Amino acid sequence: MSKKRVAIIGAGPSGTAQLRAFQSAAEKGAEIPEIVCFEKQDDWGGLWNYTWRTGLDEYGEPVHCSMYRYLWSNGPKEGLEFADYTFEEHFGKQIASYPPREVLRDYILGRVEKAGVRDWVRFRHPVRWVTYKEDTGTFHVTAEDLKAQKVYTEEFDHVICASGHFSTPNVPHFEGLNGFNGRVLHAHDFRDALEFKDKDILIIGTSYSAEDIGSQCWKYGCKSVTVSFRTAPMGFKWPDNWEEVPLLTKVEGNTCTFKDGSQKRVDAIILCTGYLHHFPFMDEPLKLRTANRLATADLYKGVVWNANPKLFYLGMQDQWFTFNMFDAQAWWVRDAILGRIEIPSDRAVLDGDVERRVAEEDASDDPIGYQGDYVRELIAETDYPSFDVDGACAAFYEWKKHKKENIMGFRNNSYRSVMTGSMAPKHHTPWVDALDDSMEAYLRA
Amino acid sequence: MSKKRVAIIGAGPSGTAQLRAFQSAAEKGAEIPEIVCFEKQDDWGGLWNYTWRTGLDEYGEPVHCSMYRYLWSNGPKEGLEFADYTFEEHFGKQIASYPPREVLRDYILGRVEKAGVRDWVRFRHPVRWVTYKEDTGTFHVTAEDLKAQKVYTEEFDHVICASGHFSTPNVPHFEGLNGFNGRVLHAHDFRDALEFKDKDILIIGTSYSAEDIGSQCWKYGCKSVTVSFRTAPMGFKWPDNWEEVPLLTKVEGNTCTFKDGSQKRVDAIILCTGYLHHFPFMDEPLKLRTANRLATADLYKGVVWNANPKLFYLGMQDQWFTFNMFDAQAWWVRDAILGRIEIPSDRAVLDGDVERRVAEEDASDDPIGYQGDYVRELIAETDYPSFDVDGACAAFYEWKKHKKENIMGFRNNSYRSVMTGSMAPKHHTPWVDALDDSMEAYLRA
Ligand SMILES: Cc1cc2nc3c(=O)[nH]c(=O)nc-3n(C[C@H](O)[C@H](O)[C@H](O)COP(=O)(O)OP(=O)(O)OC[C@H]3O[C@@H](n4cnc5c(N)ncnc54)[C@H](O)[C@@H]3O)c2cc1C
Ligand SMILES: Cc1cc2nc3c(=O)[nH]c(=O)nc-3n(C[C@H](O)[C@H](O)[C@H](O)COP(=O)(O)OP(=O)(O)OC[C@H]3O[C@@H](n4cnc5c(N)ncnc54)[C@H](O)[C@@H]3O)c2cc1C
Ligand SMILES: NC(=O)c1ccc[n+]([C@@H]2O[C@H](COP(=O)([O-])OP(=O)(O)OC[C@H]3O[C@@H](n4cnc5c(N)ncnc54)[C@H](OP(=O)(O)O)[C@@H]3O)[C@@H](O)[C@H]2O)c1
Ligand SMILES: NC(=O)c1ccc[n+]([C@@H]2O[C@H](COP(=O)([O-])OP(=O)(O)OC[C@H]3O[C@@H](n4cnc5c(N)ncnc54)[C@H](OP(=O)(O)O)[C@@H]3O)[C@@H](O)[C@H]2O)c1
Repeated sequence: MSKKRVAIIGAGPSGTAQLRAFQSAAEKGAEIPEIVCFEKQDDWGGLWNYTWRTGLDEYGEPVHCSMYRYLWSNGPKEGLEFADYTFEEHFGKQIASYPPREVLRDYILGRVEKAGVRDWVRFRHPVRWVTYKEDTGTFHVTAEDLKAQKVYTEEFDHVICASGHFSTPNVPHFEGLNGFNGRVLHAHDFRDALEFKDKDILIIGTSYSAEDIGSQCWKYGCKSVTVSFRTAPMGFKWPDNWEEVPLLTKVEGNTCTFKDGSQKRVDAIILCTGYLHHFPFMDEPLKLRTANRLATADLYKGVVWNANPKLFYLGMQDQWFTFNMFDAQAWWVRDAILGRIEIPSDRAVLDGDVERRVAEEDASDDPIGYQGDYVRELIAETDYPSFDVDGACAAFYEWKKHKKENIMGFRNNSYRSVMTGSMAPKHHTPWVDALDDSMEAYLRA
Repeated sequence: MSKKRVAIIGAGPSGTAQLRAFQSAAEKGAEIPEIVCFEKQDDWGGLWNYTWRTGLDEYGEPVHCSMYRYLWSNGPKEGLEFADYTFEEHFGKQIASYPPREVLRDYILGRVEKAGVRDWVRFRHPVRWVTYKEDTGTFHVTAEDLKAQKVYTEEFDHVICASGHFSTPNVPHFEGLNGFNGRVLHAHDFRDALEFKDKDILIIGTSYSAEDIGSQCWKYGCKSVTVSFRTAPMGFKWPDNWEEVPLLTKVEGNTCTFKDGSQKRVDAIILCTGYLHHFPFMDEPLKLRTANRLATADLYKGVVWNANPKLFYLGMQDQWFTFNMFDAQAWWVRDAILGRIEIPSDRAVLDGDVERRVAEEDASDDPIGYQGDYVRELIAETDYPSFDVDGACAAFYEWKKHKKENIMGFRNNSYRSVMTGSMAPKHHTPWVDALDDSMEAYLRA
């Protein structure tokens, strides 16, 4: 019998967790399938790879990057640490709690570089089309080798889709935008806050992107920040040149009118209105369609595609937990493929699992705890190093309190690692004064 | 025998020309195949539909629009007039020679609205994947109905790809762009020149986008325009705050360094570096890969896909002639499908035709005349109303002279219609003073 073949789509934190999961099994002596990871970028790291590009890239592919200059972790690193590869192992010392993008990227990639799995990845190979063949019981995955300019199709026993869901912007229309005399952009295309120095900016949305892009622009010298909410204001203690207003109703020239009739003249409009789950390469019977929530639609255990359990999706949940949740999922999917975990053959059981998760999320008033329970549930079923999930939740609860106290200062706090037990040092410079976000500056003692 | 089925991809000027070509045959009593036109936008008109959106649209699809506010025709309308539907027929009078976008769009669409073919188009149905099945001799076209959220596949005897080639930007990298402290954009994402009022802008490239976007920004009050060339400067008589410099070599902060060592501090960088032929939905054996030139690769008569002559591409040439060239192609392709024109069955003849065209283009020092000859050649083989192609060429030669004389004033000139023989009136306002580009303002007597 020839080896099983597994296709992984994407080499971001989720896809690389899957590579590491298989490699760690092989390291312990298991026979593993042939793994092919298709990645459309020229490097691994997913969203954590920064580029000045927006829109389409040099090959005409949608630019994946939604990150921007000066981005620091918006949650404490103690909530996302890998259980099998700690910050102390990577950096040779404990570091402060809210690392900038470059530092976190270095950490994520350090683990898979150590694992030596880079040659499982085909870079610059976007997946174009995936179908399932009933007659052979296999998937046909069509990809394009952009450098060789060649489209080709290969057969796989399993597909694991880890293409992310914070890359395709959700871009609503507002009346009059066709006539706005400045820049309108989505958070996905935001790159350098200095573009907005001395400008009056309008932000639509009240979630993480709105809060953080507004804070960046404020930190780097914009003239004012106006945040327009659909549901409710964020309600933090904002600086004086920051206000929250009801939803934008129309734009005339540079003047914006809001639901309460108030108006504001602005230079730029930044839509921080979230992202779409978008899988243009998936044939209808395989395509996940879900809202951005903790209990995704149609995925047993949050990872198995109910309509065809040979297909898996990783990291498709809204995220409090990130890297260690992706690990929990990747180890679980690995074990399902290796036959160590059995997926129920009765479709009703799979659907019932999803229904229960949805109902429990709807009933919960503690989303952090809810997702912590999910991570714990998956970890318990594999050999992923168990860790103090409650401790990680506790870091998140503290973080929320710190934000309430001081939205421009919460990143000055430190937390204790649940993996090593050691306390993070205080960072050498308060976040508002730290204008250089390079790894070198951050790691300086 | 059941009716043949023909898929058209795209309902821009080329795709709508194809609809009109079939409808005009039907009108004259011919039996025509079933036509399905797949269009990813929610309206027809192709590039001529303006939107404030950039990057990805509300469904996550790449935004097709490369046009911008205040765009006027860059060539005289007398070079692009339809032979079967004149400007005078559409507007009820002769109009000035360089209409703004909205006016030209109205004209293009007027013809197909009159033809009554709108219900042949499936709007918001991007084509995802096209393959050819050797066993049935048919194409499988997979499209997504974005509104109904449904991917489906249908079978066709012919595919005509009219998806355009000025929509996927060619975006080269320059050293240091990751650290630039302002906006970097491609012409494709340029929307409103007022965003650059009082700013120093750098433009890369020396073709139509460079010339026109620079002129827009100048007209709407930018502080200075610096144009960086790779091959040669444009050499027009530019205004005082406009200079041409050698190619950009690196960017540090906001400072740009050019090949001759000179430097300039700029606020924004606009890459007017052209477009890619990009067909991510085409399987390898069907995918056109060509440079942007008058004699495209691998297309017999500029339209037949040599490797599989049941597949056609429209409008894939670089363009002096536009709308009436698309017509010439569409009528020819229609007649090939109707069996009125025979495509040689010997592949060597098809390839020989392409080789000859490439050699003739390379040898020619008159690209306008070269493309005029091509249009004349196609028209002679169908019932498309013949017209004075030499007269249209003459309008282009005059236009080039007018640009040399006065780059900010060439649009104040008028030319004679080769279709009706009547002279265009002088526009009521010189282009530099006409800040309102609406149809209403333009058509005002
Ligand atoms: C602005 C922003 C800031 C964030 N900040 C934080 C933070 O501070 N801390 C935190 O923990 N999380 C943060 N996140 C959450 C983020 O979702 C995760 O950290 C993580 O990047 C998700 O990993 P992923 O592998 O699931 O997806 P991604 O990182 O999106 O990776 C998906 C990969 O799939 C590839 N791909 C996509 N389509 C194809 C295709 N057709 N063919 C081949 N390859 C394909 C992409 O190129 C990419 O490499 C942030 C998210 C955003 C948008
Ligand atoms: C900035 C700019 C200015 C221009 N100005 C002029 C001018 O002044 N005068 C002039 O004559 N020409 C001008 N042109 C040239 C232009 O190429 C033509 O006028 C014309 O629009 C080309 O028509 P087309 O139908 O071939 O392509 P397009 O106009 O590009 O239309 C292609 C259509 O295909 C659709 N499509 C693409 N992919 C898919 C898919 N996968 N599935 C379904 N549908 C799809 C698109 O949505 C679009 O509607 C300009 C071009 C640019 C870029
Ligand atoms: N490291 C960092 O600092 C950082 C920075 C940015 C983002 N991120 C991460 O990026 C991910 C995405 O966050 P996000 O904030 O972009 O998306 P998100 O959490 O999904 O939030 C979307 C926001 O858009 C609003 N919205 C959606 N449609 C709207 C409409 N039609 N009109 C008005 N408002 C609308 C929503 O408002 P309602 O509440 O009314 O629905 C909500 O406020 C998260 O994982 C986050 O942690 C991290
Ligand atoms: N109606 C209007 O006013 C209007 C406005 C804009 C565009 N258009 C139309 O749009 C179409 C496209 O025109 P376009 O100007 O965008 O594209 P284009 O004609 O293909 O020109 C591309 C330009 O980019 C330069 N370039 C490419 N790669 C480069 C690199 N790596 N470094 C530096 N320079 C590079 C080329 O320089 P080299 O010469 O060195 O190769 C050339 O000057 C045309 O049909 C045009 O008529 C019309």
